[in-house]
Amino acid sequence: MYYFDNAATTFPKPDRVYDKVYEAMKEYAANPGRSGHKMALKANREVYDARVLISKFFHIEDCFNLIFTPNCTTALNMAIQGTLKEGDHVITTSMEHNSVLRPIKHLELLGVENTIVYADENGSISTDSIKKAIRTNTKMIAMTHVSNLTGTIMPIEEVGELAKSKGILFLVDASQSAGVIPIDVNKTNIDFLAFPGHKGLLGPQGTGGLFIRDGLRTDTIIQGGTGSESYSIYQPEIMPDKFESGTLNMPGIVGLKEGLNYILETGIENIRKKEEELSKFFIEELRKIEVVKIYGPTDIKQRVGVVPINIMDMDSSEISYILDDRYDIYVRPGLHCSPLAHETIGTMEQGAVRFSFGPFNTEEEVEYLIRAIFEITKQI
Amino acid sequence: MYYFDNAATTFPKPDRVYDKVYEAMKEYAANPGRSGHKMALKANREVYDARVLISKFFHIEDCFNLIFTPNCTTALNMAIQGTLKEGDHVITTSMEHNSVLRPIKHLELLGVENTIVYADENGSISTDSIKKAIRTNTKMIAMTHVSNLTGTIMPIEEVGELAKSKGILFLVDASQSAGVIPIDVNKTNIDFLAFPGHKGLLGPQGTGGLFIRDGLRTDTIIQGGTGSESYSIYQPEIMPDKFESGTLNMPGIVGLKEGLNYILETGIENIRKKEEELSKFFIEELRKIEVVKIYGPTDIKQRVGVVPINIMDMDSSEISYILDDRYDIYVRPGLHCSPLAHETIGTMEQGAVRFSFGPFNTEEEVEYLIRAIFEITKQI
Repeated sequence: MYYFDNAATTFPKPDRVYDKVYEAMKEYAANPGRSGHKMALKANREVYDARVLISKFFHIEDCFNLIFTPNCTTALNMAIQGTLKEGDHVITTSMEHNSVLRPIKHLELLGVENTIVYADENGSISTDSIKKAIRTNTKMIAMTHVSNLTGTIMPIEEVGELAKSKGILFLVDASQSAGVIPIDVNKTNIDFLAFPGHKGLLGPQGTGGLFIRDGLRTDTIIQGGTGSESYSIYQPEIMPDKFESGTLNMPGIVGLKEGLNYILETGIENIRKKEEELSKFFIEELRKIEVVKIYGPTDIKQRVGVVPINIMDMDSSEISYILDDRYDIYVRPGLHCSPLAHETIGTMEQGAVRFSFGPFNTEEEVEYLIRAIFEITKQI
Repeated sequence: MYYFDNAATTFPKPDRVYDKVYEAMKEYAANPGRSGHKMALKANREVYDARVLISKFFHIEDCFNLIFTPNCTTALNMAIQGTLKEGDHVITTSMEHNSVLRPIKHLELLGVENTIVYADENGSISTDSIKKAIRTNTKMIAMTHVSNLTGTIMPIEEVGELAKSKGILFLVDASQSAGVIPIDVNKTNIDFLAFPGHKGLLGPQGTGGLFIRDGLRTDTIIQGGTGSESYSIYQPEIMPDKFESGTLNMPGIVGLKEGLNYILETGIENIRKKEEELSKFFIEELRKIEVVKIYGPTDIKQRVGVVPINIMDMDSSEISYILDDRYDIYVRPGLHCSPLAHETIGTMEQGAVRFSFGPFNTEEEVEYLIRAIFEITKQI
């Protein structure tokens, strides 16, 4: 089995992630933050440790400004829907995933305006085009750090600077970058950082989080029991409880911590370097095959290990099917929940075959992949 | 270690639950419903099987009317916030958890009226009192099946009948009943059934679900990628995708299925019978201790294995602390996220010490517990 679908979810995870989830379930899976007995305190402590570790990783000063969510989509919804009100304007980009676009289009119905800034054909967004879209009522710029289609790295430092200078809130979707590219919420002037746990951070599915900068007036979109202010039938304002109603996925969060520990021990720069090498090798070899079209930036430094291709005008699903069926190679075809990104690069009809590398892919696997693609192109 | 905090989360789970989660993570944790390769299809198939099994368990005809959520709180928010609009009226009860009360109180700000019907001192709600609260604009009755404080079983069949006859939507919070008392959404005229995965259903934390009756006009409160209609920047209407944006907690859902399989093989009636016997034994023995006050219905048939007590006017946290520290007995003191329920039974100041039994508690453990309580009462 050859897994190149790491942009959807990384697989495998380090063994210690599986072991830690198992241990958490079996040994101390009480309800964290609810009761006061030893096992509940242990569960709570483990969640706290995860909060501290992830906060440090993103340079978040107060770990209580980091909330856990079941996935990145929920984190993005919380930031977008909890912050934008009638009369506000939000700027986003054509390279966004539907987890950003759909909440924003939903808010149109409630009187929140939006501008979608289009990228160039490599999926690159210019800070200047965002600047031009700013209006007097612009409350937020919401953009991805890295395109989930083309792997393009966006100029979030520049945009963060721009947002700060204009007093506009800056939301970054780190779905494809968290755990792959270092992120500093302060240096980059990020007000909201949404991330999944199960992609680059190597945690299990069912995890994610959102950093909310101190002092922002963001409402929670979900209310309920928090284990705090239990005398009150109104949602507490204290962090992180305000945004963490209901029982957390404690074993998942503990597994996420372990995924991050693996990254810290391996070195994020080594993970990035390896993915860069694999992408470079893959792209260079594919360039030799005439009928293959590769999308995204040509400069390897401007992209991560996410590479979409097409073979002539073949349907992307058909190629994926052949890769799966004949070669046991797993990739993702179609539109990747990013319709405007496909519109941007001109693949709305055909879709694209997306290859995404993870920290456990090897050069041998990529060689096998290249041979498979070569064979397919020979047979058509 | 003696664990009597099963109303917060059941512990332990059957070993097969842990094993299944581990297996899912290690062997087929691709992104379900996204890619089309073998491993993604396997992940998707496992989620589908869980959907079918849980649907059958609750007599839900079309399994696509069952959506997975990260916990019961999110399910309740989806039903309440997704359905009630300005000008609507909702009836709820004083025995609700804050996961019902807080969303309803939040909706007050948006012009949704509410009436909170109070229970008697045993935590019992009369259908008649709900009937009297009905107004011309009453859209929903939202109530718990079983109180998480007193263990009182509510007359949901009667209320379901009433709701149906008046054309009012009926939302049942099955947090304390799912997996303990059989539930038939059709016989009971339930329009929304919200349940956690990690309590009576013996699944891992990070799981839950919501049944939404076919044809109801409920909006989703979270939008995003669904793996369907990916060409569109608007949320799809198809079920269950409409309500399942973002990556699901696939390993958790697979574990939940395994918890339910354990229940089906053991027989829900046997689980219920055992918890009834333990509660009966516990309550009868405690009644012999003069300084102990037991709350909830006296008739054991009217309650589940959730028993709150107080010892004279001692603070509930102090008793819990002694039980934990000296006896290694784990329970939950305080207000249990149910302030109005405590107000109802008169324990708002003192809180209560809640003992809740699970399928793996034994008579020997309960004997040990009773001896511990007896000793504590002798020492004060």
